[in-house]
Amino acid sequence: MKVGILTGGGDCPGLNAVIRSAVKTAEERYHWDMIGFLNGYKGLIENKTRPLTGDNVGGLLLRGGTILGTSNRDNPYKYIETIGGKKITHDVSDRVVTAYKSNDLDALIIVGGDGTLSTALQLYKEKGINIIGVPKTIDNDLSATDYTFGFDTAVGIVTDAVDRIQTTAESHDRAMVVEVMGRDTGWIALYSGLASGAHIILIPEIPYTIEKVCQKIYERKGKGKHFSIILVAEGAKPEGGNVTIKRMVDDPTMGVRYGGIANVVADQIEAATGIETRTVVLGHVQRGGKPSAFDRILCTRLGVEAVHMVHRKEFGKMACLRTPDIKAVPLEEAAKNRKVSPADQVIIAARSTGISFGD
Amino acid sequence: MKVGILTGGGDCPGLNAVIRSAVKTAEERYHWDMIGFLNGYKGLIENKTRPLTGDNVGGLLLRGGTILGTSNRDNPYKYIETIGGKKITHDVSDRVVTAYKSNDLDALIIVGGDGTLSTALQLYKEKGINIIGVPKTIDNDLSATDYTFGFDTAVGIVTDAVDRIQTTAESHDRAMVVEVMGRDTGWIALYSGLASGAHIILIPEIPYTIEKVCQKIYERKGKGKHFSIILVAEGAKPEGGNVTIKRMVDDPTMGVRYGGIANVVADQIEAATGIETRTVVLGHVQRGGKPSAFDRILCTRLGVEAVHMVHRKEFGKMACLRTPDIKAVPLEEAAKNRKVSPADQVIIAARSTGISFGD
Amino acid sequence: MKVGILTGGGDCPGLNAVIRSAVKTAEERYHWDMIGFLNGYKGLIENKTRPLTGDNVGGLLLRGGTILGTSNRDNPYKYIETIGGKKITHDVSDRVVTAYKSNDLDALIIVGGDGTLSTALQLYKEKGINIIGVPKTIDNDLSATDYTFGFDTAVGIVTDAVDRIQTTAESHDRAMVVEVMGRDTGWIALYSGLASGAHIILIPEIPYTIEKVCQKIYERKGKGKHFSIILVAEGAKPEGGNVTIKRMVDDPTMGVRYGGIANVVADQIEAATGIETRTVVLGHVQRGGKPSAFDRILCTRLGVEAVHMVHRKEFGKMACLRTPDIKAVPLEEAAKNRKVSPADQVIIAARSTGISFGD
Amino acid sequence: MKVGILTGGGDCPGLNAVIRSAVKTAEERYHWDMIGFLNGYKGLIENKTRPLTGDNVGGLLLRGGTILGTSNRDNPYKYIETIGGKKITHDVSDRVVTAYKSNDLDALIIVGGDGTLSTALQLYKEKGINIIGVPKTIDNDLSATDYTFGFDTAVGIVTDAVDRIQTTAESHDRAMVVEVMGRDTGWIALYSGLASGAHIILIPEIPYTIEKVCQKIYERKGKGKHFSIILVAEGAKPEGGNVTIKRMVDDPTMGVRYGGIANVVADQIEAATGIETRTVVLGHVQRGGKPSAFDRILCTRLGVEAVHMVHRKEFGKMACLRTPDIKAVPLEEAAKNRKVSPADQVIIAARSTGISFGD
Repeated sequence: MKVGILTGGGDCPGLNAVIRSAVKTAEERYHWDMIGFLNGYKGLIENKTRPLTGDNVGGLLLRGGTILGTSNRDNPYKYIETIGGKKITHDVSDRVVTAYKSNDLDALIIVGGDGTLSTALQLYKEKGINIIGVPKTIDNDLSATDYTFGFDTAVGIVTDAVDRIQTTAESHDRAMVVEVMGRDTGWIALYSGLASGAHIILIPEIPYTIEKVCQKIYERKGKGKHFSIILVAEGAKPEGGNVTIKRMVDDPTMGVRYGGIANVVADQIEAATGIETRTVVLGHVQRGGKPSAFDRILCTRLGVEAVHMVHRKEFGKMACLRTPDIKAVPLEEAAKNRKVSPADQVIIAARSTGISFGD
Repeated sequence: MKVGILTGGGDCPGLNAVIRSAVKTAEERYHWDMIGFLNGYKGLIENKTRPLTGDNVGGLLLRGGTILGTSNRDNPYKYIETIGGKKITHDVSDRVVTAYKSNDLDALIIVGGDGTLSTALQLYKEKGINIIGVPKTIDNDLSATDYTFGFDTAVGIVTDAVDRIQTTAESHDRAMVVEVMGRDTGWIALYSGLASGAHIILIPEIPYTIEKVCQKIYERKGKGKHFSIILVAEGAKPEGGNVTIKRMVDDPTMGVRYGGIANVVADQIEAATGIETRTVVLGHVQRGGKPSAFDRILCTRLGVEAVHMVHRKEFGKMACLRTPDIKAVPLEEAAKNRKVSPADQVIIAARSTGISFGD
Repeated sequence: MKVGILTGGGDCPGLNAVIRSAVKTAEERYHWDMIGFLNGYKGLIENKTRPLTGDNVGGLLLRGGTILGTSNRDNPYKYIETIGGKKITHDVSDRVVTAYKSNDLDALIIVGGDGTLSTALQLYKEKGINIIGVPKTIDNDLSATDYTFGFDTAVGIVTDAVDRIQTTAESHDRAMVVEVMGRDTGWIALYSGLASGAHIILIPEIPYTIEKVCQKIYERKGKGKHFSIILVAEGAKPEGGNVTIKRMVDDPTMGVRYGGIANVVADQIEAATGIETRTVVLGHVQRGGKPSAFDRILCTRLGVEAVHMVHRKEFGKMACLRTPDIKAVPLEEAAKNRKVSPADQVIIAARSTGISFGD
Repeated sequence: MKVGILTGGGDCPGLNAVIRSAVKTAEERYHWDMIGFLNGYKGLIENKTRPLTGDNVGGLLLRGGTILGTSNRDNPYKYIETIGGKKITHDVSDRVVTAYKSNDLDALIIVGGDGTLSTALQLYKEKGINIIGVPKTIDNDLSATDYTFGFDTAVGIVTDAVDRIQTTAESHDRAMVVEVMGRDTGWIALYSGLASGAHIILIPEIPYTIEKVCQKIYERKGKGKHFSIILVAEGAKPEGGNVTIKRMVDDPTMGVRYGGIANVVADQIEAATGIETRTVVLGHVQRGGKPSAFDRILCTRLGVEAVHMVHRKEFGKMACLRTPDIKAVPLEEAAKNRKVSPADQVIIAARSTGISFGD
């Protein structure tokens, strides 16, 4: 037996741990061979591979990123190539079949986000490739699983950063607006806000008004607390619509690279309250480096289970955490049922301790 | 309304976070007063208290230990006192009632392990005190809850330590035996072993033979890997019975303070294989200091829910994590159904990646 | 004897450790009393104080920021006050003398940067106040001392962040531009670049050209390394002058809050090489939170020595690290002799390992 | 040109960083080749090598231990071999010359402690090998250099551990005795004690009496502080001679593996004061894993300078930190002038803040 694996989408702490445990399980438990495709679907399309053995996955538990490389954009059904000097978009999904067959594969494990897994589902259904999925989204917004890997690590990194920022806010009597990942859902902001004792948390699921934000800041001031920590998910939005993120002067086609919403919120707070306000945008620090112990364990279990699923021929499914077990769930569930937080017990808990969501 | 709180048993990262969120919820959500009893049941018996307000629980999320102090041994039904120069053990549970009434309490939140909570149940049933429990065991061996707080922090600390030790083992071609907490169950050893890539894990639930341990070490040597990491729970035992932990010479009544089983295993490995073997006993480092983000969130939710349970008059129950929610569970469940690991999916996952349990 | 202390300028890890050890030395060694002035010179001008005893400085070694608060702008010689609805700037240095005398002080320890210490020198010379200084600049650009406190902590934080970012850069074949503190000098960029294995370091002392920056990126690409880490001090500038940092559209008077130079450099790299380039601006995370062990030791020694200097009546001086000792150095040296790095052996070492400075 | 390198003695965080920067400097700056000898002198004697290039030293800054392996005991002048079933000790230094010549080496960089460097000096003098040394001792007890690498990392690890232990001590009103490395000198205990706010520090240079230790504990109790942290270097000794470390019962030839002195001190404290006392022995955790930023910089500079010293033909010397520079110092100084701490300004600072040394 021979099994392939690839990682697609944005990188995430724990990808290497998934690869490692899949390879070890294939080798130690089933005596199968494994190969990795490089840079996501691109390597599958171009048939670029590297062998994977127990020996060359040593030390991967600690290592962030993915040794296979990844790619955010490639899709075999809409592949962009430059042919004869012209950029064309076409369906190269047959090359995937060719690569799969030419490598004598019996199954293919695909680790990726909803886009990557939707394509995986299509390849499974239309091309008959024996695909097992492992869902990956640092944002934790997948209903099919209790936690997605990388999320615990990201929450830990943000929490550590806010622990640091808090002392500066306190020493200078400042409001600090900290922007974290979360375009569509606010799980990272919510969890790290709860963990770090933030005073206000703004998330996409709960539109805020700046009046309510400032009201909380004034309330704190009234109790003699002259500083406030505001955690903002990058997709947070005010009631009544999106904010217009300011763009740069010299070249209006070049968007602000980062820190859109944090700047907007900070300006509004400073204008309304006169309190010195600063922004911090944690950006890529949140998604790289050594995974937390929790994520290493989760990833190890996911990689193991993916290989067991190959053994049990549960193709077209993905490995998901349903505490306390890892279960096989249809790939269809990767693309639907985004997990959103407003009704969640965690939000209620946060409100109970006095945290404001700006609503 | 007025609510009391106390912490009993061994300290554990997150105790302060439970206190903090309970106090904040009482204050912000219900406008109730709270007081803390000092040093576990001792403070309840002797009516030693301190007021708890939002102001004086600031900064507690990051702080290990418990600001209320704790005590491992005191039990109001079997209280040991020195009276007239003589040590006597007697039932002083009526003093608990007196303290409860004299402080005008409407409820009492008790955070503690199975011993502490058994006593809590008795006080609830026999004395009619409105008790809410929050279970605490760093060992994670309580069936009633998915995770107990402090466990994630402990696993993180052990994992970091083994990450460090691994490079020494590798550089020197050594076997390293690392002893971690876990007298009756091996959850910390199992989880941190999986997270850190240990090669052998010995836990109380799976009796080991030294032959099987050495077999794994030889297997690794056969593949050119001249070092091995062996994680041992303090309660690990060989097939056929307990080991006789060696005692000190000068005074045989004084037990070895630490490192019983690690030494025994290391000696046996060294004797059987000739491989240089070293021991590390992590001890108290595992249970102190700043809680992980995961534990801070869990504790915050537990403290919040305990106060909501007071509001809902769910007395005689304790707050437990049933992912994704915190649920009220009868206190009776704290003392029974110890969660043991052998049949667990995590063990199967560990075995699949080639980890040996010495069996 | 009675000694005052205040902290001025931007906050910096270790301020609390200086306060703690000064208070402990005054109490344990000399049996003196100490008081702290709140919020830098503001508290001195307005005579707002708090008593400082061994008891209330407990736990401060771990705590970032300053329990006394600080202020970036206040100067008793040019104090800004609103009187009769009008903002006026005037000399209130006599109020300092009044506060000093009314508190019965024998000496005043002032912890702060070059601005704060210049004022301290003036107060010492013109008003006869017995001042001892402790220099503070997270940027480490003071010739009088081997290291300033907070610098080691900041370098550690940046290094950890770059360790994380590196795996993302590698997994995605990206250039990552990381902006760190350092308006006038590049010590943080230089040291953390060396510690984290950055490929290019841009600092104010060495003007760069984007051509040389890209040349290094191409060189790496030629060796099959498709990612690069560029560390940029916020004051880095291209040969031939300053860059024009782009400003926001809606309100051109509102400067970009952060990430000026990183954006400029990233745009230029992307435009010139076509390589996907991302920016990270570490900002306030660098200056808050728990100090490193190195900084805790340095700060403890500085606080101790400041009090010994009071005892030895070495007024008008500041405590500086001249490895291996702390020495008393005239306050005049705080304002002159900025330590710049270009000729430094560390730069030569960095170049030797192949790091480019874009020149 | 071709240069060899080996690492000898106990492992230490930063060895890989020295190797990395030496290789990079040789390659990038001088275009020389480098090879590494495996497992210290053993690899030199047996001529076991691996090539070292910029490519295969990537990622080494973060990695503890040494990729070359090391060995604590091998000495080419007194090499132990089993020949014809018999263990013999003989002089095989000529094999070193053979290996050196057969690899066409122009110089040999030896990274190691005083034993390793004494042998290096002998090889330089007697065999005419062009040796450059890099001193290594985690204990920091070398007069020739301001700091040895690994020390800052070890102090950081101990400080973090004591930060954790402190909260347990406080919650339980206990004395905690923490044993750290330092057989002959107490630098790690001294520095980490200062950094973590220990109350008592026992080091080999200052014999203690248990009376003075307990006196400090009582003093604290008198001030309402019912817990104490005692940091003990493994070589600490009472006034009037060494303690007799208790040995195990079953086999008196087998020494206690760890925790000799901590147990002795803890027993004495408990016996004298009745205060519950616990021990923690940090052991190997102190010397493995990721080096601190400070150590990575120091090691990078040492590796760079060692290669520059080859270029300048400064053989028979070693690279040492003389703040702010790395200087070439005769190898003779590695073996003499152990740096001891009692008269040091750091001790005086510690005493000034109220820390007791048990004298």
